[in-house]
Order: sequence, then C-alpha cells, then structure tokens
Amino acid sequence: MNNSSDVKVVIEKLTERLGNDAVQSVVPEKYLSDRTSALKGRADCIVIPRNTAEVSFIMKTCSGHGVSVTPRASGTGVTGGAVPSGGILLSMEKFNRIIEIDADNLCAAVEPCVITLDLNKAARDKGLFYPVDPGSQDESSIGGNVAENAGGMSAVKYGTTKDYLLGAEFVTPDGTVMNAGGKFVKNASGLNILAILSGSEGTLAVITKLVMRLVPLPGARRDILMKFDSLEHAADAVKRITSAHIVPTAIEFMERSAIELVSKHSGKEVPFGGADSLLLFRIDAGSDAELDRQEKAIVAAAGADEDSFMVARSEDESALLWSVRRGVRPAIEKESPVFLAEDCAVPRSEIPRFVRAVKKIFEEKNIDSLFFGHAGDGNVHIDILKRDIPDDRWKALLKELKPLIYKEALSCGGTITGEHGIGSLRKEYLPLQFTVEEIELMRRVKRAFDPEGILNPGKIF
Amino acid sequence: MNNSSDVKVVIEKLTERLGNDAVQSVVPEKYLSDRTSALKGRADCIVIPRNTAEVSFIMKTCSGHGVSVTPRASGTGVTGGAVPSGGILLSMEKFNRIIEIDADNLCAAVEPCVITLDLNKAARDKGLFYPVDPGSQDESSIGGNVAENAGGMSAVKYGTTKDYLLGAEFVTPDGTVMNAGGKFVKNASGLNILAILSGSEGTLAVITKLVMRLVPLPGARRDILMKFDSLEHAADAVKRITSAHIVPTAIEFMERSAIELVSKHSGKEVPFGGADSLLLFRIDAGSDAELDRQEKAIVAAAGADEDSFMVARSEDESALLWSVRRGVRPAIEKESPVFLAEDCAVPRSEIPRFVRAVKKIFEEKNIDSLFFGHAGDGNVHIDILKRDIPDDRWKALLKELKPLIYKEALSCGGTITGEHGIGSLRKEYLPLQFTVEEIELMRRVKRAFDPEGILNPGKIF
Repeated sequence: MNNSSDVKVVIEKLTERLGNDAVQSVVPEKYLSDRTSALKGRADCIVIPRNTAEVSFIMKTCSGHGVSVTPRASGTGVTGGAVPSGGILLSMEKFNRIIEIDADNLCAAVEPCVITLDLNKAARDKGLFYPVDPGSQDESSIGGNVAENAGGMSAVKYGTTKDYLLGAEFVTPDGTVMNAGGKFVKNASGLNILAILSGSEGTLAVITKLVMRLVPLPGARRDILMKFDSLEHAADAVKRITSAHIVPTAIEFMERSAIELVSKHSGKEVPFGGADSLLLFRIDAGSDAELDRQEKAIVAAAGADEDSFMVARSEDESALLWSVRRGVRPAIEKESPVFLAEDCAVPRSEIPRFVRAVKKIFEEKNIDSLFFGHAGDGNVHIDILKRDIPDDRWKALLKELKPLIYKEALSCGGTITGEHGIGSLRKEYLPLQFTVEEIELMRRVKRAFDPEGILNPGKIF
Repeated sequence: MNNSSDVKVVIEKLTERLGNDAVQSVVPEKYLSDRTSALKGRADCIVIPRNTAEVSFIMKTCSGHGVSVTPRASGTGVTGGAVPSGGILLSMEKFNRIIEIDADNLCAAVEPCVITLDLNKAARDKGLFYPVDPGSQDESSIGGNVAENAGGMSAVKYGTTKDYLLGAEFVTPDGTVMNAGGKFVKNASGLNILAILSGSEGTLAVITKLVMRLVPLPGARRDILMKFDSLEHAADAVKRITSAHIVPTAIEFMERSAIELVSKHSGKEVPFGGADSLLLFRIDAGSDAELDRQEKAIVAAAGADEDSFMVARSEDESALLWSVRRGVRPAIEKESPVFLAEDCAVPRSEIPRFVRAVKKIFEEKNIDSLFFGHAGDGNVHIDILKRDIPDDRWKALLKELKPLIYKEALSCGGTITGEHGIGSLRKEYLPLQFTVEEIELMRRVKRAFDPEGILNPGKIF
C-alpha cells in the first residue's frame, strides 16, 4: 500500500480537483498525533474537503490507486484512532456546521466536526439537550464521538453516543455516498448499517452528516457529593440506590489517591478532601419537588448522615462539587505529564472486586495509581503515573501491566475499553477479549465496507 | 441449494446426534406460517435443539451440505421472516428460560424464546421493568423482538429493542459459537457486531442467549385519553407537549375510522367513541406529585378543556382507556379477517402530512382504511380491510397500493417499516428506500456472516 508513485498521482489528481488550499504535502505536526503523547504518525499529504462530493472524489481517487486514507475529526482520541501511518490524512475540519436543530422531531442534523458542547449549547437554546458528555466535550466532535461510541458522566441515565445516532450520510472507501436512518426513532428496514458505524473508529466509512437524537431539557437538576470510608461502602450505596428505583443522571466515584491529587494541585480547599472515597451524584427531573424526593431517597438508601454529604444549592456550588471530579485529569497532567489511562468497563456490581484486584497488582509492583470514573455504569478509569520512572522501565512496565489489567476486567465479565476504543494502541490486546473467529468476523465486516483495506488501516485489528 | 440427497444426509446426521424427538420430517402446519395469513412456507424437516452445542452442530452440518436453515422463535411476525422455503426449520422453542434477573446490574440473561411479557413479569418481581412493549408482547419472544428490532407503545420515552440489547451468544452459519457485549452499558472494543444482529431478521446468526437491559420500575404511572376534532389538532397537541418538555411513556393516536370500528365491535360503550381523533397518553414518574405536574402540563399544552379528556384513576379505568387502543387490532380481525397492515415510520411532525397523502390515495380508489399508531414516535399503522373485495382484485390492489404508501412515507423523510421488518413480503420494495449500492453493502455484510447464504435465505433481500 501507498506506493510512492501512486501517492504522487493521487496528490496531483486531488490538487487539480480541490485546489492547492485543500491539499498540502507539508502536514502540520498537530495533525499527526492525538492526546496520546506516545504516538506520532506520518502522512504523505493532508486533504481538507469542503463538501460530500469532494470526500467522494477523494475516496474514489485513493481507492483507484490503493492509497490509504486516515479520517480525522478533532483528534482528541487517546488510542491512536486518528493518527495516520502514511497516505492521505483526511481532515474533516470544514464539516463543522450545525445544519438544523429540529425541535419538533427532537433531533439535530450536524456535520461530523461540530464540537459536542456546541451542539449541546445550540440544543439548549431550543429547550433541548444532547445528553452524552464525554470528558472532552468542549473539544471533541460529534463525528469523533460516533466513531468511538463515546460515553461520559451521564451514561447511567442517558446511555452512550450510539443511543443518539438516528441517521448518517457517509462515504464508503470506494467513494459511494450512502445514507442510513433519518429523523425517525423506529426503523426495521434492511440491515442496520447505521448501528455498526458507531464505534467503528473510522475504519468503515467517512461520515459526512449525522442526525442525532435530542431530549427535552429537564426542568431541574441537582448535584450531591457524598463521602465514604471505603470504595466497597460507596459501591454498596450505589447498589442500594439502584434498588430504591432512583436513576441519577451521573454517579461518579473517586478513590483516595485521586482525591488527594486533586487536593494537592487544585490550589484551594477541596470539599471532603480527606475522604477515602467520594460519590458525586447528579439528578435531574421535571420539578424541584421531584428532586427533593430523589435526594431524600438517595441519602436514605446510602445511609448517609448529615455530615457525610453536601448538596449544591446554586450553580456556583455545583461547579465546586464538580471541580473535584473534573479536577482529576488536570491534576494528573500536572503531577506527571506522562501517564497510562485505562478505561475498562465491568458490570457495576463488580467495581469493588475489579479495583481490588488491580490494586493488588499495582501494590506488588509498588506503582502509583489512581482510580476514578463512572460508578453508575461500571466504567473505571485507572491511571498510572510515570513520574520519574525511567523511559525504558516505564515502557516495560506498561507492556507488563496492560494485559494484567485487561484480564482482570474480562474475568469480572467486562470489556477492555468502555469509551476510548481500540485504535492502534490496544489492537494487540483484542485477542484477550475475542476469539480468533470473532475477530475474523469483524475483519470480514470490515472487508464488506472496505475490500481493499484503504480506510484507516492498522486500527482495531 | 437444498439438493434432496444433501437434505437426506443432513436429516440422518441430525437424527443420529439429536435423536428422533428433536428431528421430525413431518413439519406441523403451525410452523409453516406467521401472522401473515397470506403466507404458507414449506420445510423438509423441523429440528428442535436443546442447547447451544446442538445449534452449533446443526449449523455446521447444514453448512457442510449447503442446506438452508430458517430459525424461528414464536413466529408472531407479520412479514414472513420466520416462514421457511425448504430446508431445515430450526425451532428455538426449547430456549425458553429466564436465566437470571440481575437486579444489581439492571439486566436479565434470557434464552431467545422467552415471551416478552414473561420477562417483564419476572423483572417486575424484582422492582424492575423491561420497557419495550410490542402489541404482541404476550406471545412474541425476546429473540424475535431482537431479530425485528421490535418497537411498541413506549418507544417515545424508552426506545426500541436495540436500545436494550447488551449482550448475546450466537451461532454463525458455519456453526461457530460467538459472544458479543455483556453486562456492561459502555463498550468501545472492536466492531459492534452485537448492534447489527438487532433487526437482522435471523439472516446473520442464530441467537442462543441474550443479555437485555432493565430499568427500575417507575413509582407511579397514569393514563390520559384526549379527544380532538381532527388529526391535525391532535398532532399539534403532540408538538406543543413536546415543546413543554414532557416525555410521556406513550402517545398513541387513533383516527375516526379506527375508533368507529372499535365502537362497533367492542360490545360496550367506548370512551369518546364519537370523536374524530383520540390521543392516549401514558406518563410515568417517581411520584404522584410529579405525575400531577406532568398531567397539568399536558392538558395545558394541548389546550384541552375539561370535557375533552379523561384520566384513569384506577387500574380498571386504565384498562378501559387502553381497551380503546388495544381494541383496534381485534376489531379489524372481526370486521375483515383479511387485511393489509403497514407500519411506516415518519418524522413525528410529518404524521398529518403523511396520513393526508395516503388517505387521498385511498379515497380516490374508494378503499376502506384505518389509521392508528404511535403519535409520539411517528410510527403510523395503516390497515386496509379486504371485506368483500374479490381475491383477484384485492391482490392487484395491494400490489398497486403498497409502493404508493411507501413512497409517501419516504417522501416525508421516513422509512417503509418502523417495527415489522422486511421479511419476504416487502423485499421487492427495499429498492424504494435504498440505492443499489446501499443494498449491495447490506448483502456484503450478510456474506461476511453467511458466505454460503444458508441462513434464512430469501429474507430482506
């Protein structure tokens, strides 16, 4: 693939049709990596199409010459999914329009590079709400979210990106423009091609337009921070709250090491900064009365006394409570610019067992680690800090630790990644989760879309 | 396919391994049709496996001899998806166990032939709830629901079957047992094979086990019936209710002709029996106070005066209100045992336009029709009654009408089927909705699972 004379011909053809502005052989650095500091890709040229017809032309041309294409939205991934390895880097950055917020049909038509938070803002202006809130929502894009099936804090109540994908226009590797789904919530016509685009990490087609479901903005919401003397007790509380028929929007957890790091780096007093474990709840409902009811039920189910929880009574207080949780990632980056971020998901009841098992591994190797994440949906973030570990030892350590972490997640009935994807960084571990035959089936589906294998090669498999 | 000597060898091999009880060459009539009175299939033999290993053996054996297999759950479909055309009829009826209701992880593990309502009952015993409620829920099965991506009344708030599919064990046409997903709500590992099983109408794999998401049972619910002097006014009310940020569990609509038929056949007085159009709302929430708030908001947004709506104040009154809606299908069957049932879905705002356009077609041809369905999600049931139309004329009429109805749905931005699927009855109309290339992509995905084309041939394509 990517024979140099083929690449040359492709670049000439693309330049002729799209112009010099849209095709550049010098690829700026920022397009060659994602948020994974360890990765640096390369590309023979960057192409920035302006419309679907140009995407189609690009794919047709590359397909005709066997030149690979790596599509890229905001590039905020963390597993290398948007990092190219030669060929054409296809930046979709000009596909950044919110085409329509359709309040009557509770949906939005958007181009793939619309920033997630911008869609949410536009929806809010019409009394609506796009509930999926990945940590990166102020810089990641809807198209990237679809490619990774992004999750976030609100998945307990609202699910993940795939649950909001109603329709798509997309271009297959041979340049054909196709459509699937639309502004309807029920569909039983033909194989569900739309569904498999979600989470396909840019390996099946280039998405050029999306229809995403929106929901009415809840009338009221409230945040509650609660401390516990162990992660087990926090997990028990989650179980009892679920049994009490309460579905919070979010149930986030943080363990001592993460809380301490936020305390250290935040520069101000952190609420419940000395706790062993914290749960942060967000609840939403149609009225304050309903929130009062839910709050009481949560406190009762958790068995919390009045010193062990605090309720935000204003937007400022809400921001303060969330600053603890949202402070974890920045605190990590301050403490140690190089770190490993894993995001296994397990059945929610297995969180304590999973965390205990992984901690044991780390303790045996004397490794600093942080545990935090989404207690309501079983998605556990495990970060390991490099700090002053020498590069060689760090590399060897990751190689040793990663399969151990994944095996624990799988033995708890989980998955090796809940929201970050496989990309290039984790593909060697896919066989831990899937049989040879299961992976071969995925490959055959890949070939059904991309028989030549030119779209985002080297990712997932 | 299905060379008679191959079929003979296959039957011998299956009988040897599974025994005479599980393999029968005389196939009882009831296995050869679904709820589509017009269809009658044929099969060389019926096989009733007891476990996954037997399913694997059956598929491996049939695959080795190029003998086709038609999987069947409850057979309550209406587009011929489970109707065989020779080869092996694979009845999954012994896969009828609820393996586990896992309250901690809000999910159930079930075999595919568990009846939908039975899952819901088992869930309710633990304070949980399986929200998808197709009209056939007391006899259709979870596996069949997954195969058709079944919808129902509650899709407005709760979505369709695919939104509850967390995991599956399935057997591919070559007999390989595979797994996808599990008891976790977030997953970004590998291509989403699970998602494409939903709505695949038994053409990709034989499902042997399912993990379905459950939700906590709402604390309270309430039903409201409201009358309108036109379908347009009813549709306007739906729009204003949505704008008021209320998401009912269900918003069902019925038009005059459907109401009159229920009145005629129910044998008792139907609430608002003389209305032009009715909307039936179900709302659920954590408390009666919240229901009061939603009820007020719905009545206000609809601009209803006190004579134009009634609220069920007991289970009996609820049953009475729902008897109007649930009475439509039985009334149709009494009025005319032969009828056409279409289930197009359109963007919800397009319901009036779609209904008007289809009515115009029917009026021009002087045809009796009924309109009812799911106003909240745009899924419109259109039934045409044969009554005393001669068979030949009826056949010709359907041939003429079906594409006209589908084209109107598509021109409203909809889909030709919201919940019933394509099966064998509608496959000739698939090209109205999809391009040649889009259908070819579906076929390639089909071949990725089933290169020999032995599983449920003649369906969808």
